[in-house]
Amino acid sequence: MKAVGVIVEYNPFHNGHKYHLDETKRKTNPDCTIAVMSGNFLQRGEPALVSKWARTKMALEAGIDLVIELPYAFATQKAENFANGAISLLSALHCEEVCFGSENGTIDDFTSTVSFMKKNQQAYDHTTRQYLKEGYSYPKSASLAYSSLANHDTYVDLSKPNNILGYHYVKAIHDQKSSLKAETIMRTSAGYHDERFSHESIASATSIRKALFSAERDIKEIQNYLPQSTTKWLSAYFEEYKLFHRWEEYFTLLKYKLLTSSPSELANIYEAEEGIENRLLAFISESTSFQDFMEKIKTKRYTWTRLQRLCVHILTNTTKDQLKKINENPVATYIRLLGMSQKGQRFLNHVKKDVEIPILSKATGFSDDLFTLDQKAAQTYLAIFPEPLRTQLLRQEYAKPPIRFNEEQQIYL
Amino acid sequence: MKAVGVIVEYNPFHNGHKYHLDETKRKTNPDCTIAVMSGNFLQRGEPALVSKWARTKMALEAGIDLVIELPYAFATQKAENFANGAISLLSALHCEEVCFGSENGTIDDFTSTVSFMKKNQQAYDHTTRQYLKEGYSYPKSASLAYSSLANHDTYVDLSKPNNILGYHYVKAIHDQKSSLKAETIMRTSAGYHDERFSHESIASATSIRKALFSAERDIKEIQNYLPQSTTKWLSAYFEEYKLFHRWEEYFTLLKYKLLTSSPSELANIYEAEEGIENRLLAFISESTSFQDFMEKIKTKRYTWTRLQRLCVHILTNTTKDQLKKINENPVATYIRLLGMSQKGQRFLNHVKKDVEIPILSKATGFSDDLFTLDQKAAQTYLAIFPEPLRTQLLRQEYAKPPIRFNEEQQIYL
Repeated sequence: MKAVGVIVEYNPFHNGHKYHLDETKRKTNPDCTIAVMSGNFLQRGEPALVSKWARTKMALEAGIDLVIELPYAFATQKAENFANGAISLLSALHCEEVCFGSENGTIDDFTSTVSFMKKNQQAYDHTTRQYLKEGYSYPKSASLAYSSLANHDTYVDLSKPNNILGYHYVKAIHDQKSSLKAETIMRTSAGYHDERFSHESIASATSIRKALFSAERDIKEIQNYLPQSTTKWLSAYFEEYKLFHRWEEYFTLLKYKLLTSSPSELANIYEAEEGIENRLLAFISESTSFQDFMEKIKTKRYTWTRLQRLCVHILTNTTKDQLKKINENPVATYIRLLGMSQKGQRFLNHVKKDVEIPILSKATGFSDDLFTLDQKAAQTYLAIFPEPLRTQLLRQEYAKPPIRFNEEQQIYL
Repeated sequence: MKAVGVIVEYNPFHNGHKYHLDETKRKTNPDCTIAVMSGNFLQRGEPALVSKWARTKMALEAGIDLVIELPYAFATQKAENFANGAISLLSALHCEEVCFGSENGTIDDFTSTVSFMKKNQQAYDHTTRQYLKEGYSYPKSASLAYSSLANHDTYVDLSKPNNILGYHYVKAIHDQKSSLKAETIMRTSAGYHDERFSHESIASATSIRKALFSAERDIKEIQNYLPQSTTKWLSAYFEEYKLFHRWEEYFTLLKYKLLTSSPSELANIYEAEEGIENRLLAFISESTSFQDFMEKIKTKRYTWTRLQRLCVHILTNTTKDQLKKINENPVATYIRLLGMSQKGQRFLNHVKKDVEIPILSKATGFSDDLFTLDQKAAQTYLAIFPEPLRTQLLRQEYAKPPIRFNEEQQIYL
């Protein structure tokens, strides 16, 4: 059985994702599609809008066959670590291909860019450091360094967010000596960061979340941009839990955590560098919302995403020490199953004897360094619910088996 | 001007406190009465029912002239440290006498007990350790050791909670070579731990809090046991903030803090001894309330109070390291003024040139080891309020000047 993988957040699953999924199938003709999906917290340093379980259902109904969780330690990191974790999971599952969306759209460009960069690593690092010294943020410095070295006609434009991710997927495959074959699809319409609707059926997840968080919280207004299954599960989630998860819901906890921590304790948190923790401490007392706090601490040097990610690590109490070993060898040590179709189940049965890391159906009883961080992330994500719901959801988080979906009859088993 | 001090929690101020205050004045005939009052968290390991400001008003209207705060590092500790902090504050203020309530009622008994214990310290320590080894809690072991050494006809019965405190006040005066004179008043009626009403006008603070936390939350039902001023300020507090502070309000934060901490981080918390942190971690996930949690973790060895105090230190993130230096020399390094009558103001003007530690009217800008813990306690205490109220109250905590009360006209200035 040939499986093709996609690496996703589905926050939430929208028509752009559906287009990418359908194009992936058309281009690679797989027997099974696997989504490596972020869990409770996302790369941009935000809580996921709705639970991983609700997002798994959106994925299964849209045609994904197997949903596995990208561990916290990869999902909330910069593109390089994010890519390494995701690629290692697809490789471990004996997936044949990975297909990613990019602004570039030509896989050969990525391959040659990786080769070019391997050869020019020193010059690139040196130039990046120069730009950093001038006060640019890390992504900006890296992008400027790259521009000064590489010709955009020949190589991928790494100032574009999806090109950056794609570059790191191809590089991770190379570095991990994985047999995965990479493929790319050109992204159309909505840009990654677009906050406004500019296309009749495709909008960015950012603009969709923005609409959901508006005062009206009207799902109808955005349903043109969402598959019907997403609309259904978003509505069901809001009806059941009375909220969509966003930073503001966690601000009480973040402020409590910051105000009861010493500067030296905060300096131990992952991504707290160059005394930035002192800046956070200087402004948190007087901040009345997360938005207010972010606007106060934002500087030219630290991007919004970088600061949000730091806040996520503070919130989950993720220390430098805990990520040190994982970052030295950024590969997954287990496969956490979130959901599967009948086809996904058959694929799993087919490959599981050859999978060399544990496949977790339920997570009860399992324990390792990587998984400890997933647990803390889940405990933090659920901390905003009132009791006894919080305890029930926490119990489900570990005891719940993967969601099983019969894709022919479109029913859950 | 002669001042007499009382050491109190006033949680809340009730008729028993009024009786003690009136008897203190009758017995010592002071020009000014000073209350050293615990702030946000109390010796039994609980948040104060209402803010220090509301409790200060209750004290001023009941006849106290000067209210100063007992710092967190003393207020939430065992009798010995609690007493040392409080006595050091009264001494620093050049107060002449301290008058405490006790089950014994005769000051000479306390003096001779302290002398006796000084002579028999070794035997007492040895016997206490023996009982500890048999699995008794520390207070029980200490009390049993003392019983086996001392004759209750001659010496104070240290199985009684107020006698224990009184003993430590007298001992602290001795150890600190303070010129404070100690006096005691026999406690009548309601026992310290009584949960039920057994006297027509005097009830324990425990039974009063219990009534306030009952489903009805009817202040009328308990007003026989409270001065009118207490009833007024309790009602006003509830009306303004819609709550009385109790552990259940902080359970969300405690659970979040425990679930995002590693065992080794928890082992650094003050009073986390003998691996008790592992017991807490084993039960917190499945606990749906503070009461539920406490019932799960309680053992014969660890008293309810001991466990609650540990939970307070976990909640405020107070580490062994932070208390080490303070416990080596348990004396106050500042005097935080919470409120004063005209008489209290005159006393303060009279003594202030001879006071050798800073007197803080506002706390903005001041900083030392002891005060850092008070700040964390305040930040934690206020963390349960919604924004922007939380930020406003936090700002007031530091910027607010002491409450000034004109006792003749019974008006605030």
